[in-house]
Amino acid sequence: MFPFKTSFTLDRKISKPLYLQLSNQFIQLIKEQKLPPKTKLPGSRTLAELLNIHRKTVVASYDELILQGWIESVAKKGTFVHSNLPLLHQTEFSKSNFTSEKQKTGFFFYKNEVFTSKNIIKDEAVMYLNDGVSDGRLTPIEEIARTYRRITNKKNVFNHLGYNSPYGNEKLRGVLVNYLNETRGLQVAKENVLITRGSQMGIWLSSQLLLKKGDVIVTGETNYASATTTFKNQQAIIKIVEVDENGIVTDNIEAICKKQQIKAVYVTSHHHHPTTVTLSAERRIHLLNLSTQYNFAIIEDDYDYDFNYNHAPILPLKSHDTNGNVIYIGSVCKTVAPVFRVGYLIASKEFVDEAASRRKIVDRQGDELLELTFADFIHSGDLDRHIRKVMKIYKQRRDLFCNLFSKELNAFFQFEKPKGGMAIWAILNKKYSWKQVVKEAQKHKLIIGDFNRYDMGNLKHNGIRIGFASYTEAEIYELIFRFKKTMFAIKDSL
Amino acid sequence: MFPFKTSFTLDRKISKPLYLQLSNQFIQLIKEQKLPPKTKLPGSRTLAELLNIHRKTVVASYDELILQGWIESVAKKGTFVHSNLPLLHQTEFSKSNFTSEKQKTGFFFYKNEVFTSKNIIKDEAVMYLNDGVSDGRLTPIEEIARTYRRITNKKNVFNHLGYNSPYGNEKLRGVLVNYLNETRGLQVAKENVLITRGSQMGIWLSSQLLLKKGDVIVTGETNYASATTTFKNQQAIIKIVEVDENGIVTDNIEAICKKQQIKAVYVTSHHHHPTTVTLSAERRIHLLNLSTQYNFAIIEDDYDYDFNYNHAPILPLKSHDTNGNVIYIGSVCKTVAPVFRVGYLIASKEFVDEAASRRKIVDRQGDELLELTFADFIHSGDLDRHIRKVMKIYKQRRDLFCNLFSKELNAFFQFEKPKGGMAIWAILNKKYSWKQVVKEAQKHKLIIGDFNRYDMGNLKHNGIRIGFASYTEAEIYELIFRFKKTMFAIKDSL
Repeated sequence: MFPFKTSFTLDRKISKPLYLQLSNQFIQLIKEQKLPPKTKLPGSRTLAELLNIHRKTVVASYDELILQGWIESVAKKGTFVHSNLPLLHQTEFSKSNFTSEKQKTGFFFYKNEVFTSKNIIKDEAVMYLNDGVSDGRLTPIEEIARTYRRITNKKNVFNHLGYNSPYGNEKLRGVLVNYLNETRGLQVAKENVLITRGSQMGIWLSSQLLLKKGDVIVTGETNYASATTTFKNQQAIIKIVEVDENGIVTDNIEAICKKQQIKAVYVTSHHHHPTTVTLSAERRIHLLNLSTQYNFAIIEDDYDYDFNYNHAPILPLKSHDTNGNVIYIGSVCKTVAPVFRVGYLIASKEFVDEAASRRKIVDRQGDELLELTFADFIHSGDLDRHIRKVMKIYKQRRDLFCNLFSKELNAFFQFEKPKGGMAIWAILNKKYSWKQVVKEAQKHKLIIGDFNRYDMGNLKHNGIRIGFASYTEAEIYELIFRFKKTMFAIKDSL
Repeated sequence: MFPFKTSFTLDRKISKPLYLQLSNQFIQLIKEQKLPPKTKLPGSRTLAELLNIHRKTVVASYDELILQGWIESVAKKGTFVHSNLPLLHQTEFSKSNFTSEKQKTGFFFYKNEVFTSKNIIKDEAVMYLNDGVSDGRLTPIEEIARTYRRITNKKNVFNHLGYNSPYGNEKLRGVLVNYLNETRGLQVAKENVLITRGSQMGIWLSSQLLLKKGDVIVTGETNYASATTTFKNQQAIIKIVEVDENGIVTDNIEAICKKQQIKAVYVTSHHHHPTTVTLSAERRIHLLNLSTQYNFAIIEDDYDYDFNYNHAPILPLKSHDTNGNVIYIGSVCKTVAPVFRVGYLIASKEFVDEAASRRKIVDRQGDELLELTFADFIHSGDLDRHIRKVMKIYKQRRDLFCNLFSKELNAFFQFEKPKGGMAIWAILNKKYSWKQVVKEAQKHKLIIGDFNRYDMGNLKHNGIRIGFASYTEAEIYELIFRFKKTMFAIKDSL
């Protein structure tokens, strides 16, 4: 007979009811066919005695197993393992080593080399270079949390807890329309606004609607790597156009248009990513005219709008777009803190409607409570106050960073002090390679990251972006110090 | 000469600085070529007098325009509109009627008929049927908001405000592993967990990795409409299999496998969506064995796990998955409140890694503060307490709803009282049509919604889901009353 007494481990100390522990262990035995189909089970009184538990526990457990279809009760005969249950097959690897299940998959799936995803575990003693990100320590987290709390305390909060519009919260859409029309010269209405989780969702949605396999999109070379990755994912053909000190060369775009239909141009007009140059007025108009003449969309990713140190921000292309050709993408994540995933896509109503329906398929809706919080944060002027506050700090950091970088690392790099943004574009002298630098820097506890993403077209320009905004003055000194040690170590080894 | 005096409207009352108002209005005039290239601009003193503003304002404005490249300063000659600026072309429709821009797009983009996205404006006096959703009024919003506040008050909160892991917060991953292993019999580790924005993102990610154009996925008919839409979006071939009172008919899946390679089976094993039946133990094992034998993935969407009124929840297929074939998808949105977009996808490490990298392309990362809030909410036992509380209420509502529905509408519908979930599956007698019912119900202020989504395979079963959990007892009486008026009005008109 089956060793019922020793086959179960019941633990009164855990929160799971005993009857459930018992039935789940029965299921395990049944599916492994240690208790094969038609096996007669002991009566409830017998099993209760064997296991030293109350009879009612066994009865509840048997009831549960009958309900779930694992065992069956036959009148006047007793309780049996269900007669039709097949044996659950296990492959050899899963039998021999259960932990391997965590690694293995029993089916084929598509992998895509254009994506990488590393889970970096941070180390306090190490400094990390970044791409130009804000300093989390300056986030007005108290104001934001207070506003969030106030919103959840409202009597009508329940109206915001259910399934909501995939377009985003109505109030935030309205506040954004006023804010962007006033500050950026747009002339749009609520129906032109889709709230997203950040710029990346805007880029993805645009590429979903604009690009199918073989469609042509134009980007600069260099270009923002995540955008390029997104377009590659759509299997689009990416035509690369030169970027000079006035931004993307629109004459080259015109030359392409004369030969073939393009679907879109992706542009970071206000501080080209990664080189930080600004698209000139002449080219802005030229690009808008080309889009009208050749019927293509302009995806304008205005990630850097708020950050301008020498003069007022430059109005986006969207502010001159009277023909509905510009899809304008931005976010508050970059300005406030990346954790707050609130961004926007602004386009004609018909484009926004279609984008909203695509958005539903990956992410049913946004976070209405967070959206309400940011509607308040923008409407009250807190966002503008925050921007003014951090701009002063980032300007000081830029000046210090650029002075030190120039003074200490002049022999190794070429760079221009940027007029805006949160990063410099540092070009390493050709006699050195970033591979060397990354390797040596690690010894000095400086992590540089993936430098290849700045040269996806293999131009060998030897440049990377180095963010300055997220470091305090003391950290800037330390960072330059480590950089200097790195470069001199390389120089000495040559 | 150009009428400079009357061409500008400067307003001292708005927050935008005067010099910016002036330069933006200059830009407008220049791009419309009202001020054509090479036009000489008045000196700063002259313009200041004409406009009755300080000369410094004009100087600042000219500096700005020079920086942006709209005008140029020629030594000893003066200031001119930039000579190379092209005219910004406007199409006829944009010239004649600016508001049309909000509707029109100047380029082609792909529309997709499988998606619909309506922005429903709710009316208090009207009752809306739903698919089976929780009652927002029972959300433990105070506990959640308090936890959120506590997390944002922590000293180390700044570590959570930046760019984070696309896998989701580490703490929540750990808490979920313990919670799911203990309550649902899974045997997974942190590396098997990807935090998503809800089940829909999990379904989308799975379909991205499993399905390319022409690949085969099996679903039940009937099926959850959003899942079907997602698979169609991948241009997959959807093979439809019968669903009976024991769930999806696995013998039919086997028949398909014998003929062709399938990539995946999508299954809502614990209360089939929409018909609410439970997949039997026998079929569970059969399906798992088929997936091993024929190397396909099982996408198990366990949206209804927490809601079982008659017995303990049934362990998911994933709890028996020793071969790494089951992709397990769930969310806390459905259980707590849809506004909290926190869900999970659980699979082998290699699948999760790939899914994380795809997730980045639509949605860089989740909301770390919300994820920490839910880590706490689950770990503290608050989630379980909440479930126990609402389960009692939903059970009462189910009982009342089913009793009334049966008593008052017996002549028109066939339905079974469901053992779990938040909806019934109501089959309308064949002599009536839902089209009729929807139309008549509107007159009685009852909005039924899109009934077609329950019959995407055109089986003409005449069934729809009707949620009961979100209504109070008084609302249930009112809802059934309106339904009854609707049905008798139709009957009388026949």
